[in-house]
This record gives sequence, C-alpha cells and structure tokens, in this order.
Amino acid sequence: MLKAAIFGASGYTGLELLRILANHPDAKVVEATSRQYKGTPIPEVFPALRGFYDDLLFSDPEDLGSVKADVAFSAMPHGASQDVVPELLKKNRVIDLSADFRLHDKDTYNAWYGEHKAAHLLSEAVYGLPELYRKDIKGARLVANPGCYPTSAILALAPLAKKGLIKTGSAIIDSKSGVSGAGRGATLATSFVEASSGFKAYKVGSHRHTPEIEQELTIAAGGQLGVRFTPHLIPVSRGILTTAYAELNRTLSNSEMRDIYIEAYSNERFVRLLPDGSFPDISQVRGSNFCDIGFEIEKDSERIVLISAIDNLVKGASGQAIQNMNLMFGLPETTGLWIPGIAP
Amino acid sequence: MLKAAIFGASGYTGLELLRILANHPDAKVVEATSRQYKGTPIPEVFPALRGFYDDLLFSDPEDLGSVKADVAFSAMPHGASQDVVPELLKKNRVIDLSADFRLHDKDTYNAWYGEHKAAHLLSEAVYGLPELYRKDIKGARLVANPGCYPTSAILALAPLAKKGLIKTGSAIIDSKSGVSGAGRGATLATSFVEASSGFKAYKVGSHRHTPEIEQELTIAAGGQLGVRFTPHLIPVSRGILTTAYAELNRTLSNSEMRDIYIEAYSNERFVRLLPDGSFPDISQVRGSNFCDIGFEIEKDSERIVLISAIDNLVKGASGQAIQNMNLMFGLPETTGLWIPGIAP
Amino acid sequence: MLKAAIFGASGYTGLELLRILANHPDAKVVEATSRQYKGTPIPEVFPALRGFYDDLLFSDPEDLGSVKADVAFSAMPHGASQDVVPELLKKNRVIDLSADFRLHDKDTYNAWYGEHKAAHLLSEAVYGLPELYRKDIKGARLVANPGCYPTSAILALAPLAKKGLIKTGSAIIDSKSGVSGAGRGATLATSFVEASSGFKAYKVGSHRHTPEIEQELTIAAGGQLGVRFTPHLIPVSRGILTTAYAELNRTLSNSEMRDIYIEAYSNERFVRLLPDGSFPDISQVRGSNFCDIGFEIEKDSERIVLISAIDNLVKGASGQAIQNMNLMFGLPETTGLWIPGIAP
Amino acid sequence: MLKAAIFGASGYTGLELLRILANHPDAKVVEATSRQYKGTPIPEVFPALRGFYDDLLFSDPEDLGSVKADVAFSAMPHGASQDVVPELLKKNRVIDLSADFRLHDKDTYNAWYGEHKAAHLLSEAVYGLPELYRKDIKGARLVANPGCYPTSAILALAPLAKKGLIKTGSAIIDSKSGVSGAGRGATLATSFVEASSGFKAYKVGSHRHTPEIEQELTIAAGGQLGVRFTPHLIPVSRGILTTAYAELNRTLSNSEMRDIYIEAYSNERFVRLLPDGSFPDISQVRGSNFCDIGFEIEKDSERIVLISAIDNLVKGASGQAIQNMNLMFGLPETTGLWIPGIAP
Repeated sequence: MLKAAIFGASGYTGLELLRILANHPDAKVVEATSRQYKGTPIPEVFPALRGFYDDLLFSDPEDLGSVKADVAFSAMPHGASQDVVPELLKKNRVIDLSADFRLHDKDTYNAWYGEHKAAHLLSEAVYGLPELYRKDIKGARLVANPGCYPTSAILALAPLAKKGLIKTGSAIIDSKSGVSGAGRGATLATSFVEASSGFKAYKVGSHRHTPEIEQELTIAAGGQLGVRFTPHLIPVSRGILTTAYAELNRTLSNSEMRDIYIEAYSNERFVRLLPDGSFPDISQVRGSNFCDIGFEIEKDSERIVLISAIDNLVKGASGQAIQNMNLMFGLPETTGLWIPGIAP
Repeated sequence: MLKAAIFGASGYTGLELLRILANHPDAKVVEATSRQYKGTPIPEVFPALRGFYDDLLFSDPEDLGSVKADVAFSAMPHGASQDVVPELLKKNRVIDLSADFRLHDKDTYNAWYGEHKAAHLLSEAVYGLPELYRKDIKGARLVANPGCYPTSAILALAPLAKKGLIKTGSAIIDSKSGVSGAGRGATLATSFVEASSGFKAYKVGSHRHTPEIEQELTIAAGGQLGVRFTPHLIPVSRGILTTAYAELNRTLSNSEMRDIYIEAYSNERFVRLLPDGSFPDISQVRGSNFCDIGFEIEKDSERIVLISAIDNLVKGASGQAIQNMNLMFGLPETTGLWIPGIAP
Repeated sequence: MLKAAIFGASGYTGLELLRILANHPDAKVVEATSRQYKGTPIPEVFPALRGFYDDLLFSDPEDLGSVKADVAFSAMPHGASQDVVPELLKKNRVIDLSADFRLHDKDTYNAWYGEHKAAHLLSEAVYGLPELYRKDIKGARLVANPGCYPTSAILALAPLAKKGLIKTGSAIIDSKSGVSGAGRGATLATSFVEASSGFKAYKVGSHRHTPEIEQELTIAAGGQLGVRFTPHLIPVSRGILTTAYAELNRTLSNSEMRDIYIEAYSNERFVRLLPDGSFPDISQVRGSNFCDIGFEIEKDSERIVLISAIDNLVKGASGQAIQNMNLMFGLPETTGLWIPGIAP
Repeated sequence: MLKAAIFGASGYTGLELLRILANHPDAKVVEATSRQYKGTPIPEVFPALRGFYDDLLFSDPEDLGSVKADVAFSAMPHGASQDVVPELLKKNRVIDLSADFRLHDKDTYNAWYGEHKAAHLLSEAVYGLPELYRKDIKGARLVANPGCYPTSAILALAPLAKKGLIKTGSAIIDSKSGVSGAGRGATLATSFVEASSGFKAYKVGSHRHTPEIEQELTIAAGGQLGVRFTPHLIPVSRGILTTAYAELNRTLSNSEMRDIYIEAYSNERFVRLLPDGSFPDISQVRGSNFCDIGFEIEKDSERIVLISAIDNLVKGASGQAIQNMNLMFGLPETTGLWIPGIAP
C-alpha cells in the first residue's frame, strides 16, 4: 500500500485527489496539508468525504520534515509549489500539479510566471502526459503534471503534429472550461451570480497555458508550430471542451486521418476516439479520467477541426496525477481510475 | 423629472435601481455613490448599462452634503445605512433598501442586528409594502423597503391573517431564493462551483427576516402568529419562491378562499392571482415587479398551502423601491415598472 | 459473480444501474433491454459508458424467456413493470424500481395509479428500504425499491415516528428534486430552457409519492400520521432535499433528539448524521449512496425541522437497488457502493 | 399606432415579439396565431405575459384572410414560412424570422434546405441587418430577418471584410449559443438533464447558417471569403458568443483596427464597441438588442481575434425584427428597444 501525502489539499485538485484515492486499492492518503484548515478534520471542510477521512486532520504545511510518504502530490499554486518541491524531493517522489515544472525553458517560465526559484529542477522534471511520455514517467523522481487546457489541446493535436502534418501558424485552439478551473477561491468573476448566465473569453492572447501547449506541440512536430489559444468560461463546474482548427500540409482523407489517431491511441485506455460524425460532450467525461476525441475534415480539403473533452479536475489534473503515480510505482495504469463518468 | 440619488450603488440592488430607472420616464439618476468605484464611469463596472450612464461616474459617498436630489435610495448594507439615512433626510425623502428601518421595535432590532444608531427614526419609517401601506407611503419622508423573503411571505399570507383565519403557531414559511439575494460579494459559499449543483437550507431557525415577517403578520392578524421560517438557496441568480403552510381556524371552501384573495388583490396591479390548479414559477416573474400567487386547500380541510413567486431584486428590492417612489411623488404606481418578466 | 439483467435499461435509472455495476466487483450486467434501442451497443446511447459495455447490445424486452440471470432489475415505468415482473419472478429474484409493488394496499394503489394487474404480488413484495427492512430484504424474492422522495422523507422522519413522537397531522414534507427525477423523456416542462431559470412546486397536494410516505410513516408510528407533501423542481440534474416539519408530542432537548437519531443510524453506513448546526446540501451526496440528515429544534419547543439530502438516482433509486441486491445475495451491503460523492 | 400580427406566435421568437411589443409605444399586437393553442388566452401559455395580453386569444393560422394588420411577423419555422408569406404580402408588409428568404440564391437555398416553394420572392426580400442594409429595409415590402449566428458573425467581421482585409480562407467562426436557439420544442438533446452539465459542438461543418454567413461576408468583401463555422451549445437559455479568427492581408496596428470599427459603428446605437482589453460576455446583453464587440490583434501580426455577443432571441431574432419594423414604418430605430440588458 503506497503512502501518499498531499500538499495544499484544500483546493479543488486536493479534494479531487482525496476523492479518487478514497477508492484506490493500492494507495492511501497519510497526510494532507492546509494552512487555512490545519487541525480540522477533512470532512468538516469537504462534507462529501464524510465517512472516508473522518480521522484525518489537515496538517500544517510547515511540518514538511515529518512527512513519511512514498509519493507527495503538490497541489499548491504555481510559485508556491517551487518553494516546497525541492524539500519534498529529499524524501519522496513528487508529482507537482502546479505549472512550476512544466516548462523546460527557464526564460520562458520567467517571462510568463516571474523568476523561478528552483529552476535547477526544470531539466529533471518529466512532463506528465502518459500518452506521450509514459516511459520517462515510470522512472521519474519529479513529474510535472500537465495543465488542464494543455492536456485537452495536446491530446487532440499531437498525433497530427508528430506526423508533420500541421501547417505552421495555422493551429487555433478555442477552449472552453468549467469554472472549477479557476480554483477554490472567492472572486466576483467566478461568483454564481456573475458566472451562471454568462459566457465569455478571458485572457485573450495572454493565457499562461499558451507556452505549455506550444512547447509540447513543438516537440511533437519537431519545430515551432505557433499556436493561437483562446480560453472561455462555461457556466458548469467541470469540463473542458477544446475545438482545435488546423490546416494540413497535404489533403487527408477521413480514413487516413482516422488511421493516424487509431495508431496513436488504440492502446491508450483513457483516450476514446469517437466514431465518424460523433463529437465529444463534457457531460460524458465528468468525474472520469477519459479524454474523448472526435474530428471532421472539410470535404476535399486540408482543413480540419478536432474536438476533445476532458474533466478538467480529473484527466486535466488529479486523475492524471494518479495515473502518473500508478506508472511511477509499477501499478497498472488504470488502478483506481477505471470508472465511467457520472452522467447525467 | 424627479432627480434620484443612489447610495451604495455598486451592489445588485444598486445595479437594479440603475437598470429600472434607465427607462423610467419621470425620474433620472443624478448621483450614484460607491466607495470602491468612486471616479469610475458606471458602465465600466456594469457593462450591461453601457449606452445609458456613460457620463455618470460613481461618486464618493463621503460627499453626502453635495447631493441635490428629490429622492435618495440607500442601497447600503444594514448597519451602514443607519449611518447615512439621518443625514440624507435633511435634504431628501429617503427610501432605504436595507433592514435598518423595517422593524418598529428597537429591542427586536437590537436583538437580531445589534445596537441601532438611529433608533429615533424607527417610529417614523413607513414599511414600504404598497399593497398594505399605500396611504402611509404616499406621505412618508422615510420608507423602509421590505426584505425580499418578507415580501413574498407577507403578500402570500396577509389576506388570511387579516381575516383572522390563521391558527396561531401553524404558519410555516419554506422559502427558496436565488443567489443574488446574498449580495454582490465574493464568498466561497456563493461561488459558482459551490452553489451551482447544490441546494440547501441555511440559517435554519435564525434568519434575520423572521422578525420582519412576524411583525407584519402580527399586525395583519391583530395578534402574535408565531411563524417558522426556513430559507434555502436555489442555483439561479434571481427569484424567490415561498411555499407557505398554515392551518385555518375554520374550514374554507376553495371559492371562499379565492374570494378573500380577490378582495385583497383585484385592484393590485403587481399581484397576479393564478387560476385554480396553477402555481407560480420564478421563471415567470424574472425581471418584473410582479408577485404571482397560487394556493391549494386540502379537500374538506383547514389546511392550506400558498405559493408565491417574486424576483428578489425587483418586487423584493429595487422594483418595489421605485413603486414606493412613484407613490411618494404622486406618479402612477406602475410608471417605469409595467414590464413583463423576461422568459425564458 | 452475480449475473444481473436490467429491464428498461435506457432510462436514467437504467443508466445509473449500468454505471454503478460497471465497478461492482461481484456482479456483472449480462442483459439490458430497451425497446427503443434494441440491437444498439450501449455506449452509442450512453457515451459515458464507452469502454465499459462495448460488446453489450440493448436487447429486445420481448425476449423475456431467454434471460438467464441471478437478479433482474426492472427499471420500467409504473404500470409497465407489473406486466413483466410476474414473468421475471419465474427465473430470477427481482428488484423493481417502479412504484408497482411499493404499496401494500391494493385499493390505495388503484386509487392513485389505476387498476393493478398483478396485485397478488403486493403482499409478497418487500419494501426495499434497508434501514427499515434489512432482514426481510435478505430473504425476499421480490423487492419494491422505494421512491426517491419517500426515501428522503422516511429516513428523516422514521426514527421520530417509531418513538411515537410526531403529533398526528403535523408533519409537512417540503421536498425539492432535481430534474432527472422526471425521467429521460423529452417534455417541454423539463426542457433546459423552461427549467433552467425556474423553480416551482408541482402536483401540489396530489403527488403519487404521498401514499407511499404515509404507508411507511404510519407503519413506523403504529398509527395514521397524516402527512402533507409538496414536491418542487430544482434546476439541477440530481439531488433531493427534503425539509420536514413536525410538532412533537412532548418537548425534546437537542441531545435527546440526537440520541434518537444516533440510536437509529449509528450502524447505518449510508446515513450520515450531521453535527449540530450543519445541514445537508445535495451537492455533497451527488453520485453517492448517502443520505445526509441534519435537524434543528426550536428553543424550548415541540417544533422540529429535519433536513435530508440524497442523490435521487442513487440512494433514491439505483444505488439503493444495488444495496438491496447486495443484501439479497449475502454480499457486504456496501459492495460497489462505498464511493464518496462527486463534489464539486 | 401600428397594428402587428404574429404568425407562429407560440415559439420563443413569438414570445419575445410579444414581450418586447408589450412595451412598444407605437405598435400593438392585434393577432397572434398558433395552431397548437388556438382559442387559448396568451397568458395561459406564457404566464410571464399575464396582465398584458389577457384578452387576446391565440388565433387559428388558417384564418389568414382575416388579418388586418400593418405589419406581419412570421415566426414560423423555415419551410413553413414560405407557405404563408406570399399570402401575407397581399395585405401586409412582412418581416420573416425564418431562414426562408435570407439567401439570395435559389440553388444555395435548395441545397441546404430543400426545394423552395416561393423562390420568386428571394430577389425582392431584403436582408434585415440594419447596420448593413438600413436604406433598403426602409423601403422593403419583405424583410428576411437574419439568423442568430449570422448576426453575431457578420457584425463582427463585416467592417474588416468591407475593407478587403480578410485573407481568403482564413476566417474561422467558433460560435456558442444558449439552448433557446434550438426553439421551443421538447427534444432529449435539449432537455434540462442532458444539456445542463454539458457543452458540445454540433452540426460540425454542416450548420445551415454557414451559407448565410458566407453570402453576407462575400458581399461585404466583394468576393468569396470561405468561412469555417462551428456552433456549440452553452448551458444557458439565452446568448450567443462568437469568437472569430482571421488572418489579415496586411499588418494592422491596434489603433488602425479600432478606427475601422469606429467608422463602421460609431453611429450604430445597438453595436457597442468595447474598450481595449475588454471582451463581451453574453450576460451583459441578455434581454437587450445590443451586440457587444471586442477584439485583439497579436503583436506585430496579421492575426486577429474578434469576439461578439448578442442575445439570440433579441438582436438575433425578435429585437432585430422590431428594429426592422421601426425602420420600415419611419419610427425612430430604437423605439421600444432602448432597454439595458438584465444583469445579473
């Protein structure tokens, strides 16, 4: 039985780690920290978990030294995570859910997030997208769990990028996310009244997930792709739908296209390729670790639209983190995660 | 053209006053204060109002002395409103949307809200429910605009109470409100993610609207009624539905019951009595100043259920305030308010 | 490994049985019927289940004779279920999720639902609320799975009723349900546009769950209680919150009250009694088989309000059905059901 | 006082015409037809309108000959509208809200909608987008009211297209619509339970609004543009947000871009150009006739993203129809429409 510690466990990704691990047969949460709630039993903060963690209190994150776990999840915000990860690595293998170790290039990190305080770890960290880096993840000491938008965008486009089929500068990623992506904090913009009848784009042209998407698609394509990315806010709690547009370097038939995705994903348990004419709906992946993908090619054309759906808190965060944990510790990849989405 | 000033105009009742007054033919907002946004054009804070108040800046509430208006609305929170109302009254007739002047009894106020700082005005303030106090409102210098829950509960039960038909101790008011009732502030409990898939009771047995409902039904009945009141939170922005249960002092037939409500409300433009077998839905009053009422008597029985629906921001707050303004200044009561709800 | 068949599997309770059984370690769905979708693979109708039932086609309900299962769930509508249950009972133990076998009294059934076509089974059927009838369920051949509203109301009130504490005629059950309770059918009233900004009562004084609640509370109290029941529609997919009011035959202190509920439920894994001052929220039981209960006694009074929350599709239907299956087949009661709710 | 008749008045665009015209000072609905509800008072079908049309019954659409109105709105579905419009034109000026007379080219219509039965009127019909065709609308006998998606897309892109700045083949229109766009009918896909936690694309590459958008942008650009259009379904009742991407034929500075839009829209009362860095939110136009537009140019680039928001039932349908009526009958264009959106 793996012992897991969660740092920064009082946010939504922390809650989701607790929820999924409550049913993981081979792992057990032994510590969950929260500055705000230290000393409080977990179910008092998260009543959905009543019955599961009744004897576990949120602990003080200052007591880092005392943690004796096999794996530590950092669910802290970017900037804060880099403060604790080096210390955690002394005793644990670490899966970091923040953005702190996802970018390989220090200058890019500094430009988008500000000065990195543990940049020496950037080269060691493995980008934790199992569908692309399974082998590296297995041996990793530090896994940088991907962002939610990047997970949906990269899984949609990487197979085409790897084949060198995406025309440079043509990829447009129009993404829509549920409100939980903004975290468990009280802001006017994410209040029920403001968000519930709204729909809007935000951080147009400036969202920090842009360089992460670019990094991974550039690696996949073997050269700069130049993506445009626009995030929007959907009035639902969970789910990301990404509509990705691209022009191809040559005309593809529908069946050639399908073959590319079958080759990429037929052995992937958590990627579900939808049949022709079917497109994903976030309601069908909610609560699950699946990424559903559908696509359409314009008739006789080099233009394609790809649509992917994930639950931002599961495949886009905590579920993927546990998938990474499974890989790192030699467990079957689906352990604790082979659960259908909750629909309706 | 009446000149109106709004104090504390950056909350939802302030916004709603601005929205409704934008189309009022005989009144015009000349001042809107906001400590937080002073100096900012109104449409920057409330983009829905772009095109309507483009030249009006939120002003500093400290500049009380400079206001030259015919009527001042205080849309400040309870406790804060009593600080400004005495000053406002020196120059204006005042409609206070807070709870500060609704209770006639100082001790009751103090017990539920804390020490009142302008208690000398309690006896002068007129409770601004036009269907009950139209005559007094016309001559009032200070109108205490009713709370949203009380408006829905009192309009439902007052006709029966006035007839002395409600058995003491039998009235149960089970109310459900949209989230905007909690105000325009950022709290975790009213965040989209927490509220959108939830439904719960809150402040069970301790909500501050209880004494207000009791006061008015006691006056109507000519004696203590002893109501029980439970508020709940609906995942919608606007609307209150009140399901009120009571036992009657004698058996009523359906048509006797209907006669009582026809007598009470047939001349009331903003109360719509629904036909037998029809019950209100908050979606049918949204954005409007209507209160819809339906009822059911158990066969051969003294037990009744009454259901009322209002938009908490309109008939439950700003619309009713403007209805009061119309009355105070001799305008037709429906001026600027005779608008159907926005459905769907 | 138990073999389960689901009749009428294309509705929401059918989907929910499929979803929960997908992770049940000791049971497996071998047949799922649907007149509308016969011959279609399950994931084409329910894309959330892609990866789980890829090889199972909906079968024709006419082929009743061919079913070889240990347990048959009937998820058909009331009226239709009584047509198939007698046939199913020839080969299987049956759990019926419809209302057809819940009422013990044929005349009551006929008055509320119309002429019963298999009334001879009414006396044999066991009311499948494990917290009240665990022993009988274990040996039952036919279990009548409780209605969603009744589950929430009975679990809230039965402990008091059993103690003879509820004053006759005083119980009021004000319930609010998510829209999935209306079933998976297309109606204008349950369309997104009509329901999403609404909140209303419906079937006031005439909902068919009334006699079911009365039957069980009468049995618990040992005499007629006379409940009043008003259902409402909440704009969420899942969840029932019941606010139950009652007058007591004598004054209870808070701790006496708590003792009664601890006695009733401390050994019940799926009933979670909330601490003083805490009240249930449907968002905390969503997707789970829990019933959360909280209560409040008016100070020095015989008046009480009890609030309970369930997921109408789980504890209110399919989860409870699987709980019953576990009991009937000697499995640990929580098998496949010990899962926290999905929040947020 | 203009007399207006509404054909097919029981859908959402019919309801919205009734709602807006209830407050139009210079027009009055004298007839509203509905096959389904003929003989029923309007408020029984649309309770929000109680108090406004209490004496008006839905009439039988067969009684076409009897209508004596100045203007007839056809709010019937496409295909059905072309059956009645020729008859209506004998007595009235007509505004058709269906798609039947929007496309100028008969073959295009036939290819997307099936054989047109009144194609002789296609050349006479004026495309009712006042911002582009104000002069023609004033004199028109038959106005084809634009589709909701096209209104949002064309208003966003037409100014650039007119300047010849959009690179052929580069325009991508990623649109998101509230559910009321699907009409007032009961379907499983638009039921509350299916739609409320979902978000998906639909009719990818095949939505019938595509040729309408292409027609108008081609006219504006003076040559084929070749747009790609993907509609999505947002879980809200009202609102369309369009995110439009294009590549430009030359680099534009932000201020050049702004100048183009100021030139196009500074005299347009219903188009609100947002300041730099601000982007539309559908919650800010709900219930109003406004189209809000914001944009962003990538630094030193020929790539642009434009975002527009409308209420699909107002500027996207019935509000625009009344704007057209105002123009046709020499009324100030904003009559009855100069109302802020209802937010929150």
